[in-house]
This record gives sequence, structure tokens and C-alpha cells, in this order.
Amino acid sequence: MKNSLSFIMPAWPLITVLILVFILSSVANARVSPKLGVFQGVTSLHSENNDAVGEQYLAEGDFKAYYYKQTLDHFNYRPDSYATFKQKYMINNKYWGGKYENAPIFVYLGDEAPLGNSYRYVGFMSENAERFRALLVYIEHRYYGESIPFRSREEAFSNASTLGYFSSAQAIADYAAILIHIKKTLRARYSPVIAVGGSYGGMLASWFRLKYPHVVLGALASSAPILYFDDITPNDGYFTVATRDFQEESQSCYETIKESWDEMDRIASLPDGLSILSQTFNTCSPLSDVDQLKDRLVGIYSAAAQYSSPLVTLLCQGIDGAPQGSDILTRIHEGIVTAYQGRFTCFPVTFDGAKSETYEGWSWQTCTEMVMPIGRGNETMFFPSPFNLTEFNQQCKKSYGVEPRSHWATTYYGGRDIKLVLERFGSNIIFSNGLKDPYSSGGVLEDLSKSLVAITTEKGTHCMDILNSNPTDPKWLVKQREEEVKIIKGWLNKYYKDL
Amino acid sequence: MKNSLSFIMPAWPLITVLILVFILSSVANARVSPKLGVFQGVTSLHSENNDAVGEQYLAEGDFKAYYYKQTLDHFNYRPDSYATFKQKYMINNKYWGGKYENAPIFVYLGDEAPLGNSYRYVGFMSENAERFRALLVYIEHRYYGESIPFRSREEAFSNASTLGYFSSAQAIADYAAILIHIKKTLRARYSPVIAVGGSYGGMLASWFRLKYPHVVLGALASSAPILYFDDITPNDGYFTVATRDFQEESQSCYETIKESWDEMDRIASLPDGLSILSQTFNTCSPLSDVDQLKDRLVGIYSAAAQYSSPLVTLLCQGIDGAPQGSDILTRIHEGIVTAYQGRFTCFPVTFDGAKSETYEGWSWQTCTEMVMPIGRGNETMFFPSPFNLTEFNQQCKKSYGVEPRSHWATTYYGGRDIKLVLERFGSNIIFSNGLKDPYSSGGVLEDLSKSLVAITTEKGTHCMDILNSNPTDPKWLVKQREEEVKIIKGWLNKYYKDL
Repeated sequence: MKNSLSFIMPAWPLITVLILVFILSSVANARVSPKLGVFQGVTSLHSENNDAVGEQYLAEGDFKAYYYKQTLDHFNYRPDSYATFKQKYMINNKYWGGKYENAPIFVYLGDEAPLGNSYRYVGFMSENAERFRALLVYIEHRYYGESIPFRSREEAFSNASTLGYFSSAQAIADYAAILIHIKKTLRARYSPVIAVGGSYGGMLASWFRLKYPHVVLGALASSAPILYFDDITPNDGYFTVATRDFQEESQSCYETIKESWDEMDRIASLPDGLSILSQTFNTCSPLSDVDQLKDRLVGIYSAAAQYSSPLVTLLCQGIDGAPQGSDILTRIHEGIVTAYQGRFTCFPVTFDGAKSETYEGWSWQTCTEMVMPIGRGNETMFFPSPFNLTEFNQQCKKSYGVEPRSHWATTYYGGRDIKLVLERFGSNIIFSNGLKDPYSSGGVLEDLSKSLVAITTEKGTHCMDILNSNPTDPKWLVKQREEEVKIIKGWLNKYYKDL
Repeated sequence: MKNSLSFIMPAWPLITVLILVFILSSVANARVSPKLGVFQGVTSLHSENNDAVGEQYLAEGDFKAYYYKQTLDHFNYRPDSYATFKQKYMINNKYWGGKYENAPIFVYLGDEAPLGNSYRYVGFMSENAERFRALLVYIEHRYYGESIPFRSREEAFSNASTLGYFSSAQAIADYAAILIHIKKTLRARYSPVIAVGGSYGGMLASWFRLKYPHVVLGALASSAPILYFDDITPNDGYFTVATRDFQEESQSCYETIKESWDEMDRIASLPDGLSILSQTFNTCSPLSDVDQLKDRLVGIYSAAAQYSSPLVTLLCQGIDGAPQGSDILTRIHEGIVTAYQGRFTCFPVTFDGAKSETYEGWSWQTCTEMVMPIGRGNETMFFPSPFNLTEFNQQCKKSYGVEPRSHWATTYYGGRDIKLVLERFGSNIIFSNGLKDPYSSGGVLEDLSKSLVAITTEKGTHCMDILNSNPTDPKWLVKQREEEVKIIKGWLNKYYKDL
């Protein structure tokens, strides 16, 4: 077993993290917002190092793929809405206690990526199956992977008329339909369902519990920035946290980065400035403009903050440890080199992640309803880049022919005054967030009620709790997972008592 | 002020009830199921009698009409989904305490009928506005009245492609969008919203609270048969209650009705049988077949049971009080005549309510998602008429070109094991039901939790609690309304405390 997400664990060899971050950074430069997602670009990486604790739960033959004939549009009765497509889901029934004991069903809600073999990385599912005697179900999100409506991915993505069915509400309804189908097929009417999701998938998990309590008993929503819509979270929340991560790592590192942008602009404005910058950064190809460099660096810093504290440490070690007297940009370059650890011979600024399914799909999603207004003012270590809704709308309209519905997420899912709304409504959601994760700025960080609970970890990054555990996991992470297990056990106990 | 729903109150002159029941009975014969609805065919009737208690709250000038530019499809991003239509709502702000005191908003959710002047009949809104210092909002349901997408009603109803946007989920999303708009316009962010609805509108009210707790604090769902889907409620629930109503009124009346169907068939099979039947029942036009008569009688009995206990009494008085030795059908005819009280000179069997907006709209709704499997076996006083889903589906497919999604209501809204699901989820819904109402068979008749409460009245019929009160209202009805007011006050008090 060679695949693993272990590289996002703190004490792991960082070469893999670096590849990851470079992939991610390209996505972080995307039109819209820093990349969400648990596994983005990750599952295709093959780490040489794997000591995942739950290795024994991942026997290839235990996971079987199924395809459900899914309704194209659940909320509309036009004849075209009745079209169907094959939606993929995987099941592992090795540990299931069965219908007679009403044993639980754990479902991983696919996010903005193909399901692929990502089921192999959600340790919270596989490692807890035996203990809960749980059936494991993993469902792919519509318009990703093999779950593509229309005759081909090309046709599905060809225009807004075929993309129009690509929305979170439809996705959640898909999950409901599939789970009802599975329970019916297994005659497991009283088997309680627990949803697990991370990042956008975590948002889906929490919304799924809120909208379909009759289908799902509870949800573990890891790193789900459900409050990053409209004006609920300050636009610069994301980059404020990313900045704090660097500042907490090293004040001088933070200051160097903060000063570096103007310096890049200054050099770029010199005659032959771009050549100088290309040389300084040892880019693999000549820079086309200074923004290419700046955006790539923003991507690296934010992805490091989001996914890997050790990488933040390495970057700052390089920056701070540059030879005495080094100028700002040499220091920045030293940071990159140190983080690289000699893996690359030049700085690949043109790396293009824009062809990924995630990039393509998430671009549509953010241009319709997942409008997360992430921007930067003057208060972060990054150069300012305010979120401008008007421009954003125009750009989306130009790309897809339709305008974003930027208020729909709060109309349908809520979020404003969330404690006031939910402290006497709803139950059984864990909102877990690592406070190092820039997306935690849009997360639920305080308990809303006794059973709508927030779990935060000071040192945690994006979605760590739901990924495979490792022997080197820090104590606080082990403890966090135990706490989550305990809470879910509590939900189940109450349920069985009620039953 | 001449309009009133007072005729559905128990001790009211019954001439108006009779007109009502005749109108309703035609709808009860419809393809699908006995008519739901608070006001069906009612608001156009002008009773000569009106002593409504809340007359002073109904000054014409206090209600103002508005139109909201509504999105055609909330859940789809095809370009055509972005089309808009004008959706009507009415506001009465005379009693509103205003934004500074976060005074509440009461919203009446339109059901399967034009809003028309029905706002004049929802006494629970108007009569409580002053006491709660509440803003009153009434919203028309899409595809009814003035709230028609596309260029005309004719176009909107021309085929499934234009009708496709006509669904409950879209309707509830409409309500959310309008309420958010109103609150924003009035800067009344913290004004709590209480939804009121009856019958299908009551279902919408309860679902609205469950799906959009961030928009609506609580709901009074009057006579809402949210459990009359799939196999949750026995198919014959409706007619079982209707039968019980008659049997409780008079055992002999019940038996006469029960025996009458075979007798009608027997006569009809005689040479010249239809003439004999037409004569016996003094029909205004010759019967075309025996089913016309039987269906009309089913309609009258069920509408009487649903809307008017006094009419059940009158029907039975006529049936039981026919001259000694009268045959069965003469007795039945006597029941009709007694209920008529001489208002009609003949029995209008061809009355056609099928052209009503309600009939047209509700036919579509039942043929897509509001599939309430209402049928009759051998256990009621009516002739058997089982619900056959296969036939129903075929008929709908033939009528509209699309098949019903008969499981969608339970997929999206739940209903199965409702107590198990909701006793630890959700809050602030009153499910009120009159147990004389045949639709109560599909209602929530037991508390689900401390704040998801059922209020039942032994003698109540359909939606009585939310309609205008009258000096002649029985004590139990007055008490029921007081209890509802008290519960809602409790919700508001808690909310203001939380705030």
C-alpha cells in the first residue's frame, strides 16, 4: 500500500507535502478563492512513506463500487429533469453489524473531486468501522469523476444548460436518494446514518443533517467554512489566519514576506526587471509578468498554512536563515529552496493545475452559488486584493453566461446569527476546525447547543481529523479524534434508546 | 363587509355551507384525492351573514399588495432558470411594533389557490396582529392567482416544460426569498417570523420551519396531512374518518349510506334505470351514468365531513327522518334536500369545478410530488375505490407527459418514523388538527417533542383554528386558539431572551 495522505501530518517527510503544495498553489491562484478540499491533487501522489495506522482496514477487495440511477433534477418536473445519470458510490460491508442489530452506516460525502481512491484516506471512516460495526459508504459528488450527467464530461461541461444541474442542493438530494436506496435494499430501516465530510464536503455534511434529519442522524463536518458567505465572515478572514500562522512561526519571516511584494513590483518595473526576478527565483521558465510570481507565492504560502504547519516552518527557516545581508527576494527564494529540499532544480512557476476536474468543477460552483467572498485588505502579510463582487459577477457571467447567485447559500442554508437560529433547533453536528487552517475563519468555532458542538485544535490544519491516522500523530490530534468518536457514540446511544 | 368564512363554523346558517360543499364535492371527485385547502371555492362566496369578531382588523386600506421579482428555479443554474416572474404578496403594517422593538412578522403561506382576498379570512393573523404588534404578510403560491411565471397562465400551464417549475420546494424557497427581502427592506433583521398555513399551506408551514429555521422561528400548521405520503398513513385513512363522522352522528344514517351504493348500481342496471335514478334524486339534468351520481354523493359526504359537522348532522337528519317506509335512495335524497334547506330546486349533479385554478394547479401538484395515496377498501361506508399507484402514474403520464415522483415527498420532507426523527431535532411547530376532519388521519396527532406539539380537537374540522373567529364559536375552539397563541408567545419570549 503506497498511497497515503500522511504527508499532511506534522512530522512527516516533507517532500510529498511540497509536491502537494505546488499543486495546490496553482489552484489557490484560481479566479475565485483558495482551494477548499480534503484531497485536492493529493490522492494521485504516491508517497514512499506509509505507516498509516489503519492499513489493515484498507484491503482493496473490501470496497465495492456501485452505480445508482440518479435523477438529474430533483426540484423541477420539466421532462428533461427526469433524465438520469449513473452516480458512483462505494460500499465496504466487512465490519457491518447488519440490519438485525440496526448497526450504523457511516457515509462519506464526496466533495469537489472525483471519488477515485479517496476512500482510502478517510481514516475516520475505515479506522472506526470495526469499533462501530458500521457499514461504510462513500458517495461521489455529481459532475465529478464517474458521476457525470449527459453522455460525456465534455458535453456536461459544455455550457450552462448542461452544467445547470450542478448544485449543492441537488448533490445533497442525491445523497439522500442513494442512502434511502441503500437502506431499503439492505432492509436496514433503523440503521442510523452518520455523515462524514471535509472542507466543502464538510459543509455538505452539516447541511445534509440540517435539511435531511430523517436520512442522517448526525454529521462530522470537518473544516467546513459554512459561514464564509455574504458578509458573515470578514472577507479577509482567510488571509488573516494565514498571516497569523506565519507571524506565529516567526515575526521576521512574516515581515520579510510582507515587504517582499513591493520589492517584486519595484524590481519588475526596472528595465529587464522580469529577467532579474526570473534569475533571482531560478524559475524554470522566464516570468511573463510579476503577477505570475506573486500569485504563485500567495498560493504556496496559503496552501502551506492550510495544509501543513511543517511547511510553514520550513519556509520561514529558509527565509530567516538566508546568509546575513541577503536582500528580501533572495530570502524569499531561500524559503522556497529550503521547502523544496533540493527536490526541484528550478522554480516551476508555470505549473498548471487548471485542467483538474476540481478546478473546473469548483470554478462553476463558485460562479453560481458557492460564492465565498475571500479577499485581502491592507492588514495581512500579502499584497491587497479585495474581493469585488461586481467584478466577480461580471467575470462569471463572461465565463458561463450566467451570474452567480451570491446570496443563495445564506438563503437556503442560513449562517447568519447561527447561534441564535440553531441553539434551539437541530442537533448532532460536530464542527471541527484546526485553527491554523485559514478556512477556520469561516467555520463554526463555538458550540451552538449541547449537540451542535465545535471542536477546535490550536495546531490543527485542514481536515486533519478525518484523514488516516499515523503513529507520529501528535497527542492533541489523537485526542481530538477520540472526542469525536465519543460524541458520535453518544448520538447513537440516544438513538438506540429512543428506538 | 360581506365576505366571510363563517359558514364553516358550527352554528352557522347552513345555506352557505351547502354552496361550499357543492363546490367542494366537485373537486372531491377529481382524479386524485379529496380536496385539500382552506378556502377552496370559498372566498368567492358572499355570505349575507357576518359577525366575524375581528371585523375591525380587516379595513380594506390596511392591506397593500406588492410584487416580488422571483427567481423561476432556485435549484438549477440553467439560463432559463434565471427567468423571473412577479410574485404577489400583501402586507398589513398597521399593528407592527417596528424594527426597533424587533416586533414579529406573521406570514400566511399561500396554498393551492389564488391569494385573492383570502387574507380576509385568516383570523389567526388579523385578530392577533394587535396583540403581538405583528406585521402581517400574505404570500401567494407560485402558479396561482397573479403569481404566474411566463407570459400568461395559458402558457404556464401549456405543458410540462413550463409547468416544471411548479413544486413545493420551489414554493418554499420563494417564501424564504420574499421574507428575507421584506426583512432587509424594513431593516428588521431580528424580527422573528411566525408562519401560518392551513391544509397544504399547513404542510408548507411545517416544512418551511424544518427547512429554513434561519428564516422562520416557528409555524402553526393547521390541518396539515404531512404523513399522507407513501405508506405512512393507511390509504383509507381519509374515508375511515369520514365514515366515523357519520357513524358517530347516527348509526342508521351510516348504514343507509353504506347500503345505498349497491342499490344505486342495482337500479342503474334496470331498463331505464338512469331515468329512475334521475327522477328519484330530482337531478337538474339527466344522469349520464351511475358513477356521476355516486361520485357526487361521495364528494358531498366527504366535504361535509371535512368542513362542516353541522352539515353531517343535517344530512343524517334528512336520511333518518324520511317518512317511514321510505326506500334507501329516497332517504338519501331526503338527506340532500334537508341539507339544501330548499335552496335549490333540483340536484345539480353536473356542477363543474374542474375549471378552477385550484383544480388545475393541484392536479399538476398531485401528479408530480404531492402524491397522497387516498383510497378506500371495504371497511368504510363508501363503495370501494382502492388507490392504485400504477394506474395513477399512467394517468398522470398521459395527462402531463411526466410521471409522478411518488417517493419524493418523503425523501425531501421525511415523515416516516417522525417522532424518532424529530424528537431530538427541530422545534417550534404546532400541528393542529380537528379529529372530525378526514385529513387528520394523515396529520401529526401526538407531540413529537416539547416544542413540536400536536393540538387536536375532538369536534374540529378542517383548518377551523386559523379562520376568522365568531361570537358563536364553541368554547373548545376558543380555547384551542388561546392555546396556540400561548405557545407562540412562548416561542417569542424564548427568542427575545436568547437575543
